[in-house]
Amino acid sequence: MSSSTTAQRIFNFSPGPAVLPVPVLQEVQDEMMCLPGGGCSILEMSHRDKQFLDILHGAEASLRSLLGVSDDYAVLFLQGGARLQFSMVAANLLRGSNKTAEYLVTGSWGKYAIAEAAKEGSTKAIFDAKASNYNHVPKAGDYSPSSDAAYLYYCSNETIQGVQFADEPTCPKDVPLVCDASSDFLCRPIAMPKYGILYACAQKNAGPAGVTVVIVRKDLLDRAPENLPGYMLYKNHAENDSEWNTPPTFAIYVLGKIAKWIAGEVGGLAAMKSHNEKKCAAIYNVIDANTGFYSGHANKDSRSLMNVTFRLPSDELQSSFLKGAAALELENLGGHRSVGGIRASIYNAMPMEGVETLASYMQDFATKNG
Amino acid sequence: MSSSTTAQRIFNFSPGPAVLPVPVLQEVQDEMMCLPGGGCSILEMSHRDKQFLDILHGAEASLRSLLGVSDDYAVLFLQGGARLQFSMVAANLLRGSNKTAEYLVTGSWGKYAIAEAAKEGSTKAIFDAKASNYNHVPKAGDYSPSSDAAYLYYCSNETIQGVQFADEPTCPKDVPLVCDASSDFLCRPIAMPKYGILYACAQKNAGPAGVTVVIVRKDLLDRAPENLPGYMLYKNHAENDSEWNTPPTFAIYVLGKIAKWIAGEVGGLAAMKSHNEKKCAAIYNVIDANTGFYSGHANKDSRSLMNVTFRLPSDELQSSFLKGAAALELENLGGHRSVGGIRASIYNAMPMEGVETLASYMQDFATKNG
Repeated sequence: MSSSTTAQRIFNFSPGPAVLPVPVLQEVQDEMMCLPGGGCSILEMSHRDKQFLDILHGAEASLRSLLGVSDDYAVLFLQGGARLQFSMVAANLLRGSNKTAEYLVTGSWGKYAIAEAAKEGSTKAIFDAKASNYNHVPKAGDYSPSSDAAYLYYCSNETIQGVQFADEPTCPKDVPLVCDASSDFLCRPIAMPKYGILYACAQKNAGPAGVTVVIVRKDLLDRAPENLPGYMLYKNHAENDSEWNTPPTFAIYVLGKIAKWIAGEVGGLAAMKSHNEKKCAAIYNVIDANTGFYSGHANKDSRSLMNVTFRLPSDELQSSFLKGAAALELENLGGHRSVGGIRASIYNAMPMEGVETLASYMQDFATKNG
Repeated sequence: MSSSTTAQRIFNFSPGPAVLPVPVLQEVQDEMMCLPGGGCSILEMSHRDKQFLDILHGAEASLRSLLGVSDDYAVLFLQGGARLQFSMVAANLLRGSNKTAEYLVTGSWGKYAIAEAAKEGSTKAIFDAKASNYNHVPKAGDYSPSSDAAYLYYCSNETIQGVQFADEPTCPKDVPLVCDASSDFLCRPIAMPKYGILYACAQKNAGPAGVTVVIVRKDLLDRAPENLPGYMLYKNHAENDSEWNTPPTFAIYVLGKIAKWIAGEVGGLAAMKSHNEKKCAAIYNVIDANTGFYSGHANKDSRSLMNVTFRLPSDELQSSFLKGAAALELENLGGHRSVGGIRASIYNAMPMEGVETLASYMQDFATKNG
């Protein structure tokens, strides 16, 4: 039986798990039966093996280099996705304190996050874009964070609504800024020293499903009650180099390769940002040139580099649009089931060719049906 | 660059992540660039994609068929490993109740499990083999479970000590029996209807690290306090078909292939058991034929099918033994760092050839050095 080839690959606009770099997939394929020098598959290698530890530390080093993460922070590779982080952040920084955790709610994931935190202690949404159907992120004057909050939390990119913060929100000096960066991790440079905790599940820009990167400032590790469920205590993972228990070894291995691909082939996060800006502009330009036909969900100043969300004039046209797209192998463009519409997720590894094919199709479709 | 091949593969006696079936690894390699019919790699496929749902449901169906799991049970694919289950079992079945959870402690993992449960409520070790250095599992008369316990918990195979229950322990009718089967899952048929919850992380017999199978009787789902951290509530996962959040898709895909390999190529769990009995007998026979030289850790009636633990007369001989083994590509035979000695982990996918090579080497080594 012959191997499946790249010739059969579609343009995959899935919101996650999502498109990954072809050179990385090829390396993973090449090494699957036997990791060079390892004597076994990465799937079979002990997490205590020196070669795996080199992989783990290499992935960490690549992330530290890309994002400018200093030794003041621990970099953890955990399981359970963003959903478990919704609880872990609050369990570690809020449970047992008499403070309030403040949230900027700009979409679905922020709503889920504050609901989980409310089980652990006092929470307050100091900004909530519900009234405008989550079509924008706040400006600095739109919210007033307290200087004695347990932390200030935001989701840098709301995958479902397609709204993204352009920069870190304003946060009082002594309040830890906590960010769910799951769907825009590694898409651009960030101001790492501004963060208390930044976390991201991998399955958008950074790898397959099954690993969540948590970057946590070390001075925050001691705030947690010691009697948390052991897996939920960041300190356990930090003190054991992400090997408090068996980490998701394969997902870390792939993540490490992707971080190297960004640093090498792409040329770093500034180059990644520039590439991502060109990609999303190609689609937003078609929307803006056909405003009577396509209506973008996000306000222009809140548009996401990663998830372009828009609607067509009718459900019939949307169905027809998706059908025609599939004929061109432009797949997984349906919006999230909770909001409908169209969503083009164009993460780091989506090639320009895929975006151009989509933009060209969108213009043709608007011309024919507008 | 040519692919790494099976010719470079060692005999891998790692306790986990551990040896996997070569035909499964070859399928994974073949399909890595593009899942047949899927248009993308399994690493890139949305967990909501119909093709992935078929993979998920196929893995579940294979497990139900192999283990005889009825519709009275939910089969969940979670993250966080056995460590998170130590907490989740107790959070779901003990927290907020006025009952006591009873534990049979037969080794390291049982000790960790009861320590986590103690954070959630009242616990009692009704058997603890500490005084004999965890060299045996209890007989029915060695413990007295209460008929009003929250649950009765045991670890069916202690990986570090190499002791295994031959059968399910005696458990009062109305008390849920909870089992950590992480290191002997799918090694033999079990009496599934006896269990309330049976769980296993995959990285020994069932797949790569990163997925934990939890089989839970549905009537137990409602015992949990609703305000648990969302990820910890079994009910969330059961009601959402393991897609309450993004599951570890790749690990589930591999697990499904391994379950099919057991059902097909191996011939089912009875055949798997027979094969495993032959494999471990080959090594235990050498130990028993050289009792002045090799000392097995486990009592004969508690010996594990999966992890054969023994010592040599001196640390020097142990070092020399491991060095000679490595020269024959018999790797990862060192005992757990907490107990030392030698441990040969011979999970389902370890071929007879590997065991025979080890047994032959052990006899030669004893003859030369005894």
